[in-house]
Amino acid sequence: ESRLPRFATHQVGVAGAVLDEASGKVLVVQDKNKTKNAWKFPGGLSDPGENIGDTAVREVLEETGVQAEFRSLLSIRQQHNHPGAFGMSDMYLICRLRPLTFHIDFCTQECLRCEWQPLVELACTDATTPITSRVARLLLHGLRHGFHHIDLPAEQLPAVYSGMFYQLYHRALPLTEA
Amino acid sequence: ESRLPRFATHQVGVAGAVLDEASGKVLVVQDKNKTKNAWKFPGGLSDPGENIGDTAVREVLEETGVQAEFRSLLSIRQQHNHPGAFGMSDMYLICRLRPLTFHIDFCTQECLRCEWQPLVELACTDATTPITSRVARLLLHGLRHGFHHIDLPAEQLPAVYSGMFYQLYHRALPLTEA
Repeated sequence: ESRLPRFATHQVGVAGAVLDEASGKVLVVQDKNKTKNAWKFPGGLSDPGENIGDTAVREVLEETGVQAEFRSLLSIRQQHNHPGAFGMSDMYLICRLRPLTFHIDFCTQECLRCEWQPLVELACTDATTPITSRVARLLLHGLRHGFHHIDLPAEQLPAVYSGMFYQLYHRALPLTEA
Repeated sequence: ESRLPRFATHQVGVAGAVLDEASGKVLVVQDKNKTKNAWKFPGGLSDPGENIGDTAVREVLEETGVQAEFRSLLSIRQQHNHPGAFGMSDMYLICRLRPLTFHIDFCTQECLRCEWQPLVELACTDATTPITSRVARLLLHGLRHGFHHIDLPAEQLPAVYSGMFYQLYHRALPLTEA
């Protein structure tokens, strides 16, 4: 790493793909203030010092009223000159969450619509963004063949600096090799 | 996403794990200015607007003199209150690279040592960091059983804003479902 101090270059946004495995439905919203109404996973920007999974859980609750728990990281997007990022680069992560409640009470300031949508529909519809469509197909593969095919599980490891920890995400190793 | 402008909260660092599949050796360095001499993958902070893979390739070349090409993203670490990050959060990504040249001409300002080390040694040694050790075991699994088990391939997708693109990283889908 460079020996000179540097500035933060990225904002980090996190979305939560809340999948109900029993019904095969996933929680999606349509943003209120966008020109194109596309189904997306609820999400938003991380607060300073907030872990990825915590951002996803908080944003899902704030936008939809649904309580959920973090399961894994699914995808990472890096984008530069993002119009919403004011010259910063943008890192946008999508997590897989498991619902703990199902009643929707969505934020009418942020969302136009919110619903539990069959994953097979979201994977095929044109009324969505390319990244949402891609992750929907990824989730469908996980639902059918096992989430270990798509998951990046989180693990807390000790930092080299005493008393500190960090979160690490990568493909799971077979237990014999972990 | 929030409708209010926010500030960049994260610095992004990228390391390159340059693995020579023929010899089973990986390129590692020891930092000059650290108290504990631990073998690590060469890496450093992203320049503004620089893609993850490009940072890895550039830092590997600057530190070791070895030319390499990006293959995949392997792991993501998020850490808060990182001593080197001056109050920012830190996102540290490790990529898998393929060597194009093998001669080492390392930067004596940054590195104390630099060598091609057998991956089996790096996976077992105590003279490394927990994250390097973990990724070494991940690479060893990939080398033995196929890199599709560990890789997060990169793909360029069109942004919803015309003429812009972003990089997306996730587990590969079977071709029939992509």
